[in-house]
Amino acid sequence: MPKSTLDPGLTPTRLLIHGASGRMGQALLRLCAADDGGPCTVVAASARTVRQRVVDGVPYFASSELAGTPVFDAVIDFSLPEAFDAPLALALDRGAGFVSGTTGLSDAQRAALAAAALRIPVVWEANFSLGVAVLGDLVERASAALPGWDCDIVEAHHVHKQDAPSGTALALGAAAGQGGATPRYASLRAGDIVGEHTVQFAATGERIELVHRATNRDIFARGALHAARRLAGRDAGRYRLRDLL
Amino acid sequence: MPKSTLDPGLTPTRLLIHGASGRMGQALLRLCAADDGGPCTVVAASARTVRQRVVDGVPYFASSELAGTPVFDAVIDFSLPEAFDAPLALALDRGAGFVSGTTGLSDAQRAALAAAALRIPVVWEANFSLGVAVLGDLVERASAALPGWDCDIVEAHHVHKQDAPSGTALALGAAAGQGGATPRYASLRAGDIVGEHTVQFAATGERIELVHRATNRDIFARGALHAARRLAGRDAGRYRLRDLL
Amino acid sequence: MPKSTLDPGLTPTRLLIHGASGRMGQALLRLCAADDGGPCTVVAASARTVRQRVVDGVPYFASSELAGTPVFDAVIDFSLPEAFDAPLALALDRGAGFVSGTTGLSDAQRAALAAAALRIPVVWEANFSLGVAVLGDLVERASAALPGWDCDIVEAHHVHKQDAPSGTALALGAAAGQGGATPRYASLRAGDIVGEHTVQFAATGERIELVHRATNRDIFARGALHAARRLAGRDAGRYRLRDLL
Amino acid sequence: MPKSTLDPGLTPTRLLIHGASGRMGQALLRLCAADDGGPCTVVAASARTVRQRVVDGVPYFASSELAGTPVFDAVIDFSLPEAFDAPLALALDRGAGFVSGTTGLSDAQRAALAAAALRIPVVWEANFSLGVAVLGDLVERASAALPGWDCDIVEAHHVHKQDAPSGTALALGAAAGQGGATPRYASLRAGDIVGEHTVQFAATGERIELVHRATNRDIFARGALHAARRLAGRDAGRYRLRDLL
Repeated sequence: MPKSTLDPGLTPTRLLIHGASGRMGQALLRLCAADDGGPCTVVAASARTVRQRVVDGVPYFASSELAGTPVFDAVIDFSLPEAFDAPLALALDRGAGFVSGTTGLSDAQRAALAAAALRIPVVWEANFSLGVAVLGDLVERASAALPGWDCDIVEAHHVHKQDAPSGTALALGAAAGQGGATPRYASLRAGDIVGEHTVQFAATGERIELVHRATNRDIFARGALHAARRLAGRDAGRYRLRDLL
Repeated sequence: MPKSTLDPGLTPTRLLIHGASGRMGQALLRLCAADDGGPCTVVAASARTVRQRVVDGVPYFASSELAGTPVFDAVIDFSLPEAFDAPLALALDRGAGFVSGTTGLSDAQRAALAAAALRIPVVWEANFSLGVAVLGDLVERASAALPGWDCDIVEAHHVHKQDAPSGTALALGAAAGQGGATPRYASLRAGDIVGEHTVQFAATGERIELVHRATNRDIFARGALHAARRLAGRDAGRYRLRDLL
Repeated sequence: MPKSTLDPGLTPTRLLIHGASGRMGQALLRLCAADDGGPCTVVAASARTVRQRVVDGVPYFASSELAGTPVFDAVIDFSLPEAFDAPLALALDRGAGFVSGTTGLSDAQRAALAAAALRIPVVWEANFSLGVAVLGDLVERASAALPGWDCDIVEAHHVHKQDAPSGTALALGAAAGQGGATPRYASLRAGDIVGEHTVQFAATGERIELVHRATNRDIFARGALHAARRLAGRDAGRYRLRDLL
Repeated sequence: MPKSTLDPGLTPTRLLIHGASGRMGQALLRLCAADDGGPCTVVAASARTVRQRVVDGVPYFASSELAGTPVFDAVIDFSLPEAFDAPLALALDRGAGFVSGTTGLSDAQRAALAAAALRIPVVWEANFSLGVAVLGDLVERASAALPGWDCDIVEAHHVHKQDAPSGTALALGAAAGQGGATPRYASLRAGDIVGEHTVQFAATGERIELVHRATNRDIFARGALHAARRLAGRDAGRYRLRDLL
């Protein structure tokens, strides 16, 4: 079983960004170039269509060319289900970490992810905000400490978001469920709200509200970079972002 | 057409409290005895069943005995649809003001209320909180000033409340509609929340939230007393609480 | 060293309520009579001045008569610094639990409390709300998980509250400090707000808000009863309410 | 007295952007190029130092060259006190509208602005968000409708903001004061918060919170463009943004 080759400490984490032409991919490249949050180096980027072989010093590879990529410590993948298999296979082949926020995976792909976690460290999250990761932990603890309190989750997003409740709301609801609560959901779609989640616990005469407000999408790229760095030197396994804080 | 006999100014408003044995009736009697919010005198109370003819100095009348009640300036009615007709007829007969928060009225009863407003000053509200009355005014103005902004209304009440959205949420939505918005609704039922209403207007890059929080049911009795006092000397007509602030 | 005589499980906890004529004392007697939150029995009440020897079946004792009180499992004390020493001495003498929310203790009294905790189980809190106890735990965890985030605490109370920031805000700030944050405080005094505390953690692009809203003072009595029940069978020591959830 | 030459309706408003190299100037140029919010044309830009005579088709002028600028309907000025006098003189000379968000003006400059308003339509605001303009109106109405309620204003901004309370909070406080309230202020400085203002009115048993949340600075440029368009065809005078909604 290959061991992670990630370097801990201050050595820049070497990354392959898969889905580099997407919004998240672009944010990852921009933040990494600025060493936002810690040292990292993008040693390769991959996209469906490659127009320029090198952009800002980063070599680009088409999906069919991934075998030729240089050594890296982790893949960060924000792509589409149809593009998901290749970077996972690559990470397995190299014994590297695998960080993914690709949504809409098939059952087979989820099974492949679980199987990969037996050999490499893997993180998959619907939401890579550090704040949401912390909130999930707080919600589970509050739920366990407050048996019998009513639990409600309200989420608000921009008007273009199709699904409701949001994946993040459902994940927070699952955390509440771990603690014993049975949450109810309400969803608002308004303006250009990046994402807001409120988990409320209510009893007679008192109430707790646990709120996360996202105002800039960069937090998701920042959290994915954080996860990639913190996978360094970890054993194979399935990690959640909140395990890596 | 009889004119209202209400006295303006500092003369105590003379009240008949109909539905005196209910929760609102009891609150009205208690606040009135304390002259909470201004001078008033309960000259008569009425209830379905009268056990004591006089309680704390206030004479009680059964519904069938209303003809024998002394002179008053206004009726305050918080009862049930089946008990609603008698106090309205009484107010009309005496040319007094009529303040009611009885919910679940039939179409015929609503028509009778409208007809009465041609001869006496009438207030009917689903929610007699002064704050909610002000909020309704603010919502209508905001809605008119912010064309194209998304409008959402979130309300939270205790777990025993059956209807959703609340009547107050619908009334706030109607105010938003007057201003041109098309509100969407979400309802939470949790703990013993007396009542919270948030009207949100959202656009690109900014948002307004207009919130009312009720923490004590006495505000509803206080608002009904306020309305009864302010009907003093008014012409016949249908008033909203927000017209009487 | 005497061991606590408290009975665990469904046996009613036997209580002595000290400060029985105060607002908290009255609430404790009322909730206990209703077995609110679990079985309990007030076997004795004590107050500075005793007018009636027995009220609603509960025998009353003046402070000088505490030696004559029957067997109990715990004392609940909400009184004044000048009345604090007697019930603590009594709990020690009987080997019973001691639950106190008396504020303004002298250094000597705080030292006596610490010394007592070597022999009996002791709880002292500025705020006995269960929700606030949970919030303190969440704040400490969030603070530890979010190094470098800005921490602000906003509290709102009724206009009659003299001190600012509230003792609860300072306790939440101490919890944040345990996690590494340096909180700043803001205080609002408005209306009849029972108590609201918001702890905010903010970074670039995202924010967490942890809020507690109290709407009824009974929650403080309920939390003290909860603590007294949960002290049952505990070893001597200083407990926080959040240890007993 | 020259009359405004502004064209109403769908004809693009012709603008001179003063302070074009600043953050607000750049946002104005970007939004105007996209016809964000309605048709407009930047016929000239001015900056302290002009490196290129034409950028993206817009001719640039140094402050000393303003006499040579083409015909325009309004000046939008976001600059510094030391650069403020020239664009005001230019707008007066041309009989054009004058929209300014320059802060830190001297008493003499404020007097010059008031004098100019006798001859041209003038808008000066500390905050050009449409939502804040609406909030100011709502606050004044709420304050007038709720005599005796406690009024508190809480504002939150990024950690780099120096002044506290914010100019916007003070303006909202002035609106509350117009309605009769005496507001108190609290300020938070945390993360990269663009700007949040809460005006709370509290009484016994109920509360109203009026909140504005800004998440993107473009709203300030958008509001200034809105003001410039709406000055079209107006008489001379001092306008507030809320008069132009």
